[in-house]
Formats: sequence, C-alpha cells, structure tokens
Amino acid sequence: MHQLGSRSSDSTPRVEIGYVGGGSQGWAHTLINDLAQCGDVAGTVALYDVDYEAAVRNAELGNRVVDREDADGDWTFEAYRELGDTLADADFVVCSIQDPPAETFVHDIDVPKQYGIHQPVADTVGPGGILRSMRAIPQYRTIAATIRERCPDAWVINYTNPMTVCTRTLYEEFPDINAIGLCHEVFKFQEQFADIAERYVDGADDVDPDEIHVNVKGINHFTWIDEARWRGRDLYRFLDDELAARKPLADFDPGEMADASYWVNNYRVAFDLYERFGLLAAAGDRHLVEFVPWYLDLEDPEELHRWGIRFTPSSARLPDGDGPTRTERHLAGDEEFELHESGEEAVDIVRALLGIEPVETHLNYPNEGQVADLPEGAVVETNALLTGDDVSPITAGSLPREVRSLVLTHVNNQETLVEAGFDGDLDRAFRVFLSDPLVTFERDAAEALFVELVDREREYLTDWDLEDADVLAT
Amino acid sequence: MHQLGSRSSDSTPRVEIGYVGGGSQGWAHTLINDLAQCGDVAGTVALYDVDYEAAVRNAELGNRVVDREDADGDWTFEAYRELGDTLADADFVVCSIQDPPAETFVHDIDVPKQYGIHQPVADTVGPGGILRSMRAIPQYRTIAATIRERCPDAWVINYTNPMTVCTRTLYEEFPDINAIGLCHEVFKFQEQFADIAERYVDGADDVDPDEIHVNVKGINHFTWIDEARWRGRDLYRFLDDELAARKPLADFDPGEMADASYWVNNYRVAFDLYERFGLLAAAGDRHLVEFVPWYLDLEDPEELHRWGIRFTPSSARLPDGDGPTRTERHLAGDEEFELHESGEEAVDIVRALLGIEPVETHLNYPNEGQVADLPEGAVVETNALLTGDDVSPITAGSLPREVRSLVLTHVNNQETLVEAGFDGDLDRAFRVFLSDPLVTFERDAAEALFVELVDREREYLTDWDLEDADVLAT
Amino acid sequence: MHQLGSRSSDSTPRVEIGYVGGGSQGWAHTLINDLAQCGDVAGTVALYDVDYEAAVRNAELGNRVVDREDADGDWTFEAYRELGDTLADADFVVCSIQDPPAETFVHDIDVPKQYGIHQPVADTVGPGGILRSMRAIPQYRTIAATIRERCPDAWVINYTNPMTVCTRTLYEEFPDINAIGLCHEVFKFQEQFADIAERYVDGADDVDPDEIHVNVKGINHFTWIDEARWRGRDLYRFLDDELAARKPLADFDPGEMADASYWVNNYRVAFDLYERFGLLAAAGDRHLVEFVPWYLDLEDPEELHRWGIRFTPSSARLPDGDGPTRTERHLAGDEEFELHESGEEAVDIVRALLGIEPVETHLNYPNEGQVADLPEGAVVETNALLTGDDVSPITAGSLPREVRSLVLTHVNNQETLVEAGFDGDLDRAFRVFLSDPLVTFERDAAEALFVELVDREREYLTDWDLEDADVLAT
Amino acid sequence: MHQLGSRSSDSTPRVEIGYVGGGSQGWAHTLINDLAQCGDVAGTVALYDVDYEAAVRNAELGNRVVDREDADGDWTFEAYRELGDTLADADFVVCSIQDPPAETFVHDIDVPKQYGIHQPVADTVGPGGILRSMRAIPQYRTIAATIRERCPDAWVINYTNPMTVCTRTLYEEFPDINAIGLCHEVFKFQEQFADIAERYVDGADDVDPDEIHVNVKGINHFTWIDEARWRGRDLYRFLDDELAARKPLADFDPGEMADASYWVNNYRVAFDLYERFGLLAAAGDRHLVEFVPWYLDLEDPEELHRWGIRFTPSSARLPDGDGPTRTERHLAGDEEFELHESGEEAVDIVRALLGIEPVETHLNYPNEGQVADLPEGAVVETNALLTGDDVSPITAGSLPREVRSLVLTHVNNQETLVEAGFDGDLDRAFRVFLSDPLVTFERDAAEALFVELVDREREYLTDWDLEDADVLAT
Repeated sequence: MHQLGSRSSDSTPRVEIGYVGGGSQGWAHTLINDLAQCGDVAGTVALYDVDYEAAVRNAELGNRVVDREDADGDWTFEAYRELGDTLADADFVVCSIQDPPAETFVHDIDVPKQYGIHQPVADTVGPGGILRSMRAIPQYRTIAATIRERCPDAWVINYTNPMTVCTRTLYEEFPDINAIGLCHEVFKFQEQFADIAERYVDGADDVDPDEIHVNVKGINHFTWIDEARWRGRDLYRFLDDELAARKPLADFDPGEMADASYWVNNYRVAFDLYERFGLLAAAGDRHLVEFVPWYLDLEDPEELHRWGIRFTPSSARLPDGDGPTRTERHLAGDEEFELHESGEEAVDIVRALLGIEPVETHLNYPNEGQVADLPEGAVVETNALLTGDDVSPITAGSLPREVRSLVLTHVNNQETLVEAGFDGDLDRAFRVFLSDPLVTFERDAAEALFVELVDREREYLTDWDLEDADVLAT
Repeated sequence: MHQLGSRSSDSTPRVEIGYVGGGSQGWAHTLINDLAQCGDVAGTVALYDVDYEAAVRNAELGNRVVDREDADGDWTFEAYRELGDTLADADFVVCSIQDPPAETFVHDIDVPKQYGIHQPVADTVGPGGILRSMRAIPQYRTIAATIRERCPDAWVINYTNPMTVCTRTLYEEFPDINAIGLCHEVFKFQEQFADIAERYVDGADDVDPDEIHVNVKGINHFTWIDEARWRGRDLYRFLDDELAARKPLADFDPGEMADASYWVNNYRVAFDLYERFGLLAAAGDRHLVEFVPWYLDLEDPEELHRWGIRFTPSSARLPDGDGPTRTERHLAGDEEFELHESGEEAVDIVRALLGIEPVETHLNYPNEGQVADLPEGAVVETNALLTGDDVSPITAGSLPREVRSLVLTHVNNQETLVEAGFDGDLDRAFRVFLSDPLVTFERDAAEALFVELVDREREYLTDWDLEDADVLAT
Repeated sequence: MHQLGSRSSDSTPRVEIGYVGGGSQGWAHTLINDLAQCGDVAGTVALYDVDYEAAVRNAELGNRVVDREDADGDWTFEAYRELGDTLADADFVVCSIQDPPAETFVHDIDVPKQYGIHQPVADTVGPGGILRSMRAIPQYRTIAATIRERCPDAWVINYTNPMTVCTRTLYEEFPDINAIGLCHEVFKFQEQFADIAERYVDGADDVDPDEIHVNVKGINHFTWIDEARWRGRDLYRFLDDELAARKPLADFDPGEMADASYWVNNYRVAFDLYERFGLLAAAGDRHLVEFVPWYLDLEDPEELHRWGIRFTPSSARLPDGDGPTRTERHLAGDEEFELHESGEEAVDIVRALLGIEPVETHLNYPNEGQVADLPEGAVVETNALLTGDDVSPITAGSLPREVRSLVLTHVNNQETLVEAGFDGDLDRAFRVFLSDPLVTFERDAAEALFVELVDREREYLTDWDLEDADVLAT
Repeated sequence: MHQLGSRSSDSTPRVEIGYVGGGSQGWAHTLINDLAQCGDVAGTVALYDVDYEAAVRNAELGNRVVDREDADGDWTFEAYRELGDTLADADFVVCSIQDPPAETFVHDIDVPKQYGIHQPVADTVGPGGILRSMRAIPQYRTIAATIRERCPDAWVINYTNPMTVCTRTLYEEFPDINAIGLCHEVFKFQEQFADIAERYVDGADDVDPDEIHVNVKGINHFTWIDEARWRGRDLYRFLDDELAARKPLADFDPGEMADASYWVNNYRVAFDLYERFGLLAAAGDRHLVEFVPWYLDLEDPEELHRWGIRFTPSSARLPDGDGPTRTERHLAGDEEFELHESGEEAVDIVRALLGIEPVETHLNYPNEGQVADLPEGAVVETNALLTGDDVSPITAGSLPREVRSLVLTHVNNQETLVEAGFDGDLDRAFRVFLSDPLVTFERDAAEALFVELVDREREYLTDWDLEDADVLAT
C-alpha cells in the first residue's frame, strides 16, 4: 500500500520555475496569485517572453504581490532575455505561449471562413488548428532542445494549444523529457456531474466537483467520459434522464444566441454525441464541433446557433486596443490585485511532484497503455496519479469501435503532422489537412485554402520546406 | 520448394458447383461460356435464384451450350427451388445476387441525391452502400448457415457487392468457411501498367496484363498499389512521368462528359490520389470518389464531370424493359451464344483449388497478417496464392499512416456495421452511417436521410430491430 | 482534479461481506481483528467453509470480539452451510481457501521431489503449482458462477494461491465480475527500500514503508520493481551500493541455513536477479527460485541453501496435530484474542471502494494496458488506484525484453492452463507442465511425474477429462 | 491475375554474382555445378574468401567446368582479395562462411560438454549457438555495410548459420537490404510427406516431393508444419496413423545407435513433438533437441540415443587432415567433377528474381505479418513467393499458444542478442545465454561456462566490449 495522504516536512523545499510565455496577462497572473498563497514551497520564477518588457512587468508585479502581508509565499520573480538562461537548472518549466494573433490566429479563423469553414476556436484541428500546429512544432522543438540542454530532469507543464501536438513534439524531440499537458475542459464536466448528483442523489447537497470521479479518455478537446461517480455512487446512469429533461434540438431557438457571449457553452453537442454514440463527449461544445463535420455548415455560419454555440469572430482574438494592459493597471495601482482561490491546479501539481501531497487529475501524456486501443506513444488524455517525482497514467480502458474511429482519425492526423513537421514536409502536412473531417469540399479548393493560409503565415512556418513543396508549386 | 507449374493427371476430376443467383443474365452466361471451354474438369452446376424460372432458363441454355460441338466441357446444369438442395454436397459455391433494383438500388441512389449526395455507384460505402450492406448481412448469414449445414468444406466464391461486408458476414456467421471474394477492379490497373510498360520500357511490345505484377492492399474498391513490375522491371517509377503527361485538372472540359458513357473511367481520381498521397489508388474512379469527400459536391452533381466521371442515374440500374431477356433470346435462337475468352478467372480458380494449376491473384479475405497494420479478421484485398485446396494471402506490407487512416475509417465502419447487423442494432448502424465520409452535413439531416432510406427498404431489412430503434423514434 | 483525501460522512455505511473459506485459523482472525477496529463501516460477515463447524466457531469468536469494550466495530458474524446463501446480496466477497494439505499439498511437494524437483513453495508454478492450479480452476469457476447468480455487483477480494490462475478463472467464467487479487510479497520490498532510505538518505529516520512508492509489474510472485521513491527521492539508484555491500555468493556458508526457519528470506535471489538483469525481482526468494531453473538443482536439494533459502518439507504444510485449534483456544479462554495493528489491507480496501478514503496499492487484475507488452486480459500485478466503487490499474510501462521473455513463458502457461481447464483438456495441461522452466528433464520422465501427480489428486481434479486423456493412456 | 508460368525471352540476361565464402569445398562446388547447367542466365561470379588461395582454386575449377562440352552455362569465375571489390555492382550476393572450426566450433561443442550440455549441432541456439551468434553479428554487420556501399540493390542469399541471427543482422545494419535466408531442413519433410502420400493415398506413386505443399512457420531449425497437401489432398490427417505405426520410444534400442552415422535422423523427436503438441516440428531431430530441454540429459550424453540421434563430437567438425582438398583433387584430375542434379535451389531463385520463372519456397525473412503472432521484424521462416525482383512472404497464420511460447523464447533471445551485439553489451548477451532452455543449471555455473567460452573465442568476438563487462569481472 502506498500512503496517499499529505506529508508534513520540517523544511520548506525550494524550487526554480522557468516560465516560457511569462509576459502574459492571464496565466502569469494566476501563477502569481497561487504562489503567493503557497506557503509550503518557496523559490524563484524565471519569466521569459518574446515581449521582454511584459515579462519584466510581470516580474515586478509578482515580487510586489508576494511581499504583501496577505501573502504566504517566499518567492522571487525575475525576467530573462534568453530562453536558455530562463531554463538553466529549472526544476519546473511552465509553457504557455501564443503567436501574435493579428498575424496568425486572425488568419486561422478568417481565411477558412471564406471557404465556408466557420471554426469557433480553430486552435486544435480543422484548417485553423492545423496551421497553428504547423507553427507550434518548430517552436516546441526549440523548447524541448533547450530543456534537454539546460534542465533535462525538469518537470514540464504545458498549457499551450494545440495541446496534443505541442506535448507530442516535446517528446519527439527529447524522448526522456518529463512533460505533461494540462487543460481545463474536463473540469466543466465534473461540475456538470456535481450538479447531476445534487439533483438526482438523495442527500447530495453542495457537491464539490473535485469529489466527482470521472473516467476520461481520448485526446485533448475530444475526450470522452464513460464513468462518473460521487463517493462511489454511479452518476452516469442519470444521463438518460438528464437528456430527456433537456430542450430538444427542434425547440431550441437559434435567435436566443444572437446576444449570447462568444464563449457560451450549452453542452448541446456533448449531449447530442452522448445520445448518438452512447458515450459522453467531454469538452466544450465549441471544441467538439470542430472534430466532426455534423455541426458546422459550409453555407451558413448561423447554423451553429442551433447547437447553442456562437461563432467567435477573429476580432475577439485580438488584444483590447491601446490602453494599459492589466499588468500595467496593477502596477499603476489602478486595479487591485486580489488574492483569490483560482481553481488552477499547477501549484497543486508542483506540490504533488515534490512529494508533499498526491494528486489525481486528467492530463495529456504519451500513451503507454492508458488507452489500450489507441496507438502507443501518441499523446492521449486520461487520469493520472501524480506523486513524488512521478506521473503515472491510470488505465482508462478502450473506446467503443465507432468512437475510437472518430478519435483515431485525429490521432493519425496529429502523429503524421508531427512527423511531417520534423521532416519539414509541407506536402505531407497537406495530406493531413485534406484528411481533416472539416475539409469536406473539393480537393483543389482545399489546396487553395491551404496555400493561402501558408502564404499568410509564412514567416511563422520556420523549419518547413516551402521551397520544394509540390503543393505550393501547383 | 513447391512446384508452381501445372500438373497433368490421368483422370478428369468431377465437381459439384452450387450457384446462388444463378438466374442472372450476366455472370451466369460467363460461367456457361467458361465451363464449356474447360476440358480438364467436369461436373454439375446447380442453379438457384429467387426467380426460379430464370434459373431454369439458364440451366437449359447451359446444357445446350455444353452439348455443342465447339464445346469441350462435360457439364450438366440444373435449376433448384431450395437453397439447401442447391448447396447439398457442393464442392464450390458461387454467389452473385442482387435485390430487385426498383425496390432497393433505385432508392440507394435517389434518396441521398435529394440530400445532395450524388453517388455514382452506391454499392459499397456512402449512404447507398451502407443500406445495401444492411440488406446483405441477413442474406449472407443465411447463405453461410446453409453452407455450414450442407457443404461445410466447399470453396465459396463471392462476387456480390458490398464485397467486404458480404465476405465478412460469411466468416462471422461460419468462421470455418472457405470463402474468397473476387473483384475485377485491379485488373484495369494491370492493363494500365501494361500500357505504361509498352510506352516506357525498351523492347516491351504487346505486354500481357497478366504478366504485370502489382502489390495490392487495402479494402475492396479502395485498394492501393505501391509496386508494379513487368518481368522484374520496376514500372512504378514511371508514374510521375505519366502524371506529368496527363491533362491537368484545370484543362479538363467537364462539357466533354455530357455524352460520355455512364461507366466511363478516366483514372483522373486514381492519379489525383497518387499525386496527393504518393500511392496509387487502384479502383475505378466511380468507386474511389465514394470513399473520400473531396470529389463530390453537395450542391452540384455536375462537379463530378471535372474528374472525368458521370453520375449514373438510378434509371441505368433498372432492367431493360419488357422485351425478352438475353437468355430468352439465346434460347429462342434470336441471338447466338458465342464461345469467347471471357477474361473471367473463376474457372482458373476452381482449377487451382483442385490442384491442377496454381494461380496468383488479388482477392478479398480475412486479414491474418497480409496487411500488417489493418485489424486482424477484417476482410482486406491483397494478392493470394491459390494451390490445391488452399488459399494463402501474400503479405503486402503496411500502408503509409495517412493512407491507412483513410482506409481504417471504412474498415472500422464495416466491422461495426457487421456487428450491428448480427445484433440487429439499427442505432449502431446509424453511427456508422454518420461516420461515413460522404455524410458531411448536419446530424439531424443525416438522421432524416437514414430514416427515409430505412423506410423505403423496410422489407429487405430483415433481422434488424426496427421496433426499438431510437433513431426511428425521433 | 479528483480529491484524494478521506471524506467524512454523516452515516455509517452498512455492508454484507461473504467470506469463502471462513473457517480458517489465519486470515479469518485477521479480518475479525480489523473489523473490530473499523468504526466507520458496519455490517454482517457470512462465513462459509467446507468445514462448517470451523466457520461456526469463527462466527462465535467474531461476535464475541466485536462485543468487547475495546472494539469499535458494529459487525455480526454468521456461519452458512451453502455457498449460495453465503454470497446472497453480498457487497464484498473474500476468498481464501485451501484443499486438505494431506491429500494435495503434500503430494505437490513430495512427488516432484522424487524426480529431483525440490520446490520450496509449490503453490504457483512448477509441477506442484501446476497441479494446484488444476485443482483451483474448477473451484473458482463454481465461485464465479455463484457470484454471477447471487451478487453480480459485489467486489471480490481473492487471497488464494495460485493467485493469477484463481483470479483469471473468475474473469474467464464471469467477465463482468469485479475481482482483485491481493498478495503481500511486494510489501517486503517497501520495507527493504524504507531501510535503504534510512541508510542512504540524509535525514531519513523511521521511514514508514507505506511512504515508499515502487513501480511494480509482472505476475504474482514474479513481479519486478524498476522505480522506488521516498517523498520524491530516487532510492533505486542505491541498489548498486546495496549490492556491493552484501555478502557475495562465494562467501555465503550454506551451513548457516541448517537451523534457519523454513520461511527465511535473505533476498539473495532477488538481488541476484537484479545484478544479472538490471531489474529488481520483487517477491520472496522462495517464490522466485520456482520461476527460473537456475537456483534449484535436480541432484542436490541442499543447493538452495547457497541462496539463503531452506527447502520446506511437506510436513511443514500439515496442521499442527490433534490439539485444539487457535479458535478453540480463544473460545475456551485459553488464549486471549488481542486487538492489534495487523498491517493487512483488506479493510482499507473495503473503505476505499465505499468511497471513504482512496488507496493506492499493488494488486492482481486483468491487463488492460497497465503492462503494455504483456497480453491483454492476462492477470498481471501492478499498482492500482482504488476509489469509490472503482479499481483502476496504473500504467507500469513495459519490461525489458529479456525480463519480459521470462515472465511471458509463465503468462502463456497460465493462460493456456486456464483454457485447458475450461475445456477439461488434460493433454493440453501436460503441454503446460512440460513447458514449465523447472521441468528440465526428459519428456517421458516428465510424463511419469505428471501422471503420478494426477493419480494422487484425482478426486480434486473435477471437470478434467481423465477418461480420454492421451497422457494417461500411455 | 498474375501469370505464374515461365517466360521465354529473346535475350539471355547477364548478372554479376558476388560470393562471400567462395573458397569452400561444398557449396561453391554446388554453385559451379548448377551454373554450368543453367543456360538461360549468364554472367560472372566473384569469389571472396579469407583463404584467398582457396577462392583462386575454385575460380579456376569453375572456369574449367563451364568450358566443358557438357556444360551449358556462359559464366566466368574470378577470385578477389577484397570484400568491397567482390561485391561491387553485384546483382546477387551469396553468403556462406565459416570460422576456422579448430578455434571456434570445437569450443562451441567441447566446453559446454564439460558442463553437461551435449549439443549435437551447436550452430543456432544453446551455449554453442549463442557463441556462434556472437561471432557472426560483427561479421554480418561488415557484410551488410559493404553491400549498402557497393551494391545496395543486390539480392542477398544467406546460407550461413545461425541463419536467423545472420539474416536479422543484415536487416538491422542495412534496413533496405534485399536479403533472404535459405535452409534445407524443411525439404526433408516434403520427402516424408511424399512417402506418406505413396503409402496412404490411392494411386499415388513416385510422388515428387516438390509437389508436396506444406504450410511452414516458426524460426529456422524450429519450424512447424500444420498443413500438408499433395495435389489438393490432405496428407496431414495421416500423421496419427503414421505415429501409431512407428516404433514406440520404449521399444527403441539405444544400442542400435552405436554404429549410426553422426548425422542420422530418425524423425523421432519431430514426431514426439507432434504427439505432445499436436503440431509437427519440421527440422532435423539434431536441431530440434537443442530448442527444448527434454531430450538432452546433463548427466548422460548417451541419452540422446534413445531419440535416434548421435552426439556429434567436435572432431567431426574438423577438416579431413592434410591431404589435398576436393578442389585440389579436381584440379589435379584425380577426381572427376561430374555434373549432376544438385537439388539446390539457389539458381532457381536467381532465375525467379530475374523474372524468368516464379518459385514458391520456404525462406527466412523479417516478419511483416507472415506469422501473425510473432514479433514484427523478427526473422521468421515461412513460405514465400519469388517473382521478378520481388520476394513476398505468404501468410502462414498463427501458432497455438503453447507452441508459440516455445518459439517466442528463442525469438526474444535472438532479438535481444542482436541488439546486444550492436551495442557490444556482453552482460546483456549473458542474459540471453542464461535464458536459453538448455541452460538449466545454476546461475554461477552458467556464468563460468559463458566466461570460459568467451575466453576461448576472444579474438572472434570483435565489436563486443570485453573490457567493461561485469560478467567477466566476477
């Protein structure tokens, strides 16, 4: 037996965290918040960002926050100009990066739109997701190579999308890396099941979503749940009742969506897939509709509204204009930085890997048997147990053949794309593009779309051989 | 070493052949023709057909032809009313059956057309192919069960489409059956390569297509060739030259197709797939366009013309009207039955399995390693060596991952469909329907199309549970 | 994230436990002890034993103990005459059974000894282990069939050897069973590593073995450890130092063993396998020597002494003679039943499966990916996470090919033996017997040994076809 | 369909054959004999041998023979001093080499004998076979590397033992090599079945063994046959009658063997394995007894006699003394070189690969699916079809688990040994040694044997790291 409870220790461990993308306004602030409240670990955080000044500002903010009276943590933040210096001797590496949206993300959304493909997210699969993957592979090779050189034993936590391709690239470049990929989507389904428990189980009030145990399997943003329990009680069997209680598709008024948030999620697609396939798809609907061709319409972007989703225009992906950033407002004292419970698990994971308190969570990791019928080595998403210096995926069993087939198409695409990226083989990348389930129109039109996307994002497609590609020659 | 040459024998072996679908005007005539010229085997042919009178007429025709002076064979033809009697003690069983087109095939083509899916063949995959498969599974279970009972050791030669599903059903119902599935599509590519040999290889004149050795792998109508040789000389390397010599898509005038035969094949799609995927797709273009979504257009059926194919309306699938059938014309003496070289290989296969002369040909057979990276037990198409009482598939190696992924989608669909058929599970059949690459529109429209097809062909969907299916209840 | 801490609950869950083999003097007493101290679960324990009177006595003892003041638990014990009644509506089933040693175990040891095979344990593999397996298969089929009928959702905890074959038989008979197999051997290695931590790691004093995290994989009694950590610190790297510090084989005086306990374990074989294969074998040496032929000697049973093991004569396997049993002494008041910390984990596992407090431990379970390169479905031993109503094996990775090969021989033997048992095929069982690594002498001598064992234990080999077996006819 | 008959051609193809080991007295003479009678191919044969003078003599002999009136062939033989020159631009490479027996083979036999292991052949597995493998790996790496450089497209025909390890090494060093391994053992079983046909099948007289079709699978010298047919008639079913007709083991007088040839083969072991395992082992008994521990006896070498085999002392492996070699006698005119039907298939294979006449035969080739349940890439022995420039293994199906387990032990050993050889890892080689089924004694004695063998053959173990090996340090 192995004790799962937390362990007290006489001394506070000190660690070095390297943060790639440390100039961000979002995740960097969360990390500052969480470390400021983490009293049983201490150390330094090295921030690296292509926007060095943003990293400097975050470092200053971080140092100010941890110095406050209401903060527990003993941490020092520092900005770096070089990736290698940032990662030197790091115990943990956090990656959360993004290309300038105006030069990349905007095209990922707008160019396919002109061809009738209206992707609401465009960060994982579909034309936009494939281009993003193609940009990410060279970047993640560099990160992996730097880790191999500067901190080969570090634990690497990736937050960047496309999650699967980024994590897979880390392992392809440096097979001995210790990397995991974290994503929030499944948490929402713990919340859904907590809600179901409250409504269907006698005596279940105020159910903590962290008490919901779900069996997760698949690939990031196309994960599936086939078991859900609360304190040992089966919740999955209530899904049919839940389905019956939901408003049918025909009764849904797409007009309702006109004023909805771009990010609204009504779980209509997740439940529709459950109804069709007998297995609950467990990612936000905005993601799910990009993995199969049945929810988008080449002719009519409004069609998405029927499924309770809004198309998110590329404008929503651009920064907010010219005003001061949130960091700047915090530093200027215009906006208070309030410590709060973030719900983010990175610090818990750091503590688990330091041997303080074990954690079970779902994460992305190369398949070593956790999903028995998906290819070995492909990055899959399942539960895992994290203990001192160890991540062990938990077996999730297999998928019904019909679901596996849907997932496998993307696994094969992702595996092929990473191989193509390492070879710089643009023609092979186009084969993947063509095989994406959203690319349902004619081969030559698909080619035109691919070529246009490549042209727009040329400078980000480092390592790809754009000279000799047949697809560009046509 | 095992001698591959032909063997002379003192005595002429006598065999009993049971022919399911023996009232046909096509393949039955070919068999009569070929047996009439086969002097080193003799025996009886039992003809069974749901149209008993047609079987009787073919029996009479067969007996007349083999009695002619120009005929070699010592054969007797007889019509039967019961399947069991037909197959009693058979050494060989030939299956070539078809449902009444007006009640089935016509709907397979016309109903999906109303939803924008214009399938030129509709006999293997796509909405039409899936319905045909759903009808075939119960029929082939019956055939297999009868074989198990009446002639378990017989060699079964299937010609009926959907080839993969029919052959797979035979093995699922009766795992010890000796069945193979034969299809002509790949022969056309031996002809193409013979032509290439003549044009590119010095001293190659009048090349016999049977001298072309191709390495075939995949599933029926979605097979791929990655090697082609003539007398040990590599022909595959000429494909790039051949591709360059062909008229580009942009120069092709779809108008040319207006007067073309419904059955025209210009190999444009086969070569387009070669250009894109680096591997030659080896089936008629009319089939190939049904396996991927890039050649049909939901809006415009004429789009097919760009690829040198004509859409074949359902009317072309109906019998020719009220006049006498070809058999009747032969019997009435209005049309001579001329013995000719049919090019059909069934009699060669019978002779090979009798130990007279070995044959190497491509055929459909459960995967036992011949395509290493497709699922074991799925029916695949590769070369095989046929010797006395033995069929041994020849290993064809693996497929590049991107091609395998395209094929695997259909393998998974076919495997799931057969399982669903044995369970009578219509909802699971709909999952397969939804996962077909041609079904690219919204989930509820797909459902409507499926339900309409099922409704039209209800009486042929024996064994399927139409009562409790959720998909029909919606 | 899924909370791993313990959960308080307002009400105490009540469960029914069926105990097959409940008349024992050993494990039954431990269960009484542990339940008497378990205050957060209550319920009834149904005791079944072929020796009904022994079960009655244990029931009485159990009821007396839980009524004592120093006992916490609210439990009732009752003896049953029928297996079916015992298991009716059980929530948990515990199996710990044994055939009368004088009629079975004694032969398992003594007959092979006459042929030169001196097995110290003879309960898993080798001639004795194979006979024990052959007896167990019919018994465990009956247990599984009864569970299917009377308590199909129960959690089944097996303690009986041969662990792998018993657990595998449960799943073969009733694939939907929820069964796990528990064994103590690996605990000893957590103790060894705790000891290593204390000696090699600064500041590690009084290390609790439950804080040692080992990565376990293989099959019961032939498990291997390739990682060991304490609070995230690597302990495995100290094994070479540890090895160097141990007395070399040549310096070991076999004479020392003359007075040693029959059960002594010096870890010499475990470390010898580590030295040879680079991986630590993790079972008692007395077990390990039965899986490979390198530690026993056909000519000289004393040879075992060199490896720090004593051969255990069959006499040590017989009950202690005619005096009152321990239960009788307790009931008579001649010996006090003192509550103590048993170290046994069954009650912890019950609590985990009830959702009270999760547990990670190693256990035996059908392979669904936890050992990627052993056959799917074979029962393997790895870590698993036990939470409310759920057992999830944790992936343990693969074994080096040379170790896998040693393990695979036994996996194949066990899988074949279970199949043979279900078919009653004694000739196939002999093939397994012949393929056991301890059977290194001539084929006809092996046959004679097998036949003699079968003859001696005939009445226990129910379900086996002893009439038509060729091996008995010779 | 692909024509299997022979093809006439206007011109005689000319080829270059490089022969590694071309100074031999055995196989070189056979090649001279066969080429002298091969009229439809012409060319040159480059002979290379570490004994250059022997190659020169064979070249002279070859040239003389093909010039004779009774010879058809148009061939030129030439001896070379360098391997690279020999293979430059070769179309075919033949490998048939041997280390000086006095320095190697003699030890392979005599050293294990001192430890009680009396191997009759010692060229594949067992202690002697493992040492031979260890010597062969570096040699075959050199050959493969030279082929990669000088004639990468050549067809390589290996005759050297250990067949599996040699062939596997060629592919490991140069994965694109076109190599096959040929062995005669299975031919003997075609002869056995021809004999069975004559005795059991009506009207079967003078059956040509080449007309027997057997389904072969396994690894070289441990192959198995599960089907045998003659002209489509099942012969396998007569094996039980055949077995019953053979003299039982108990009636066999080992004394009979005293005067038998060292090379006698009575098929007793092959049939004994058939009786035990239900599958016919298909190699000479002298080989078979080395793959399992049941036929040798550590104490008594005479034990082999019971199985109709003689132990072959190392003296029988030494050259015949000081007189002139056979080549020298031929050149001196003391012995006539008579052209005869050799039964050897190499020239038939050359003709098949040139596209002249296809051949089906059993051969050794990396597993690409031909034996579905053995590891991919391992070299296995099955039937294959050889046509113009192509070798395609024929699927042989799987092995029963109990037989597969026996075979798999050796496959794993061979795969590990080749890996160890490429790494020069002697300790890993010892793990293989220890895992050989003939090594049934204590681990330290096994080590002593291994070390002694390594010491005696040190100079042939190039590429192995003898400096840092733990096993040598003990």
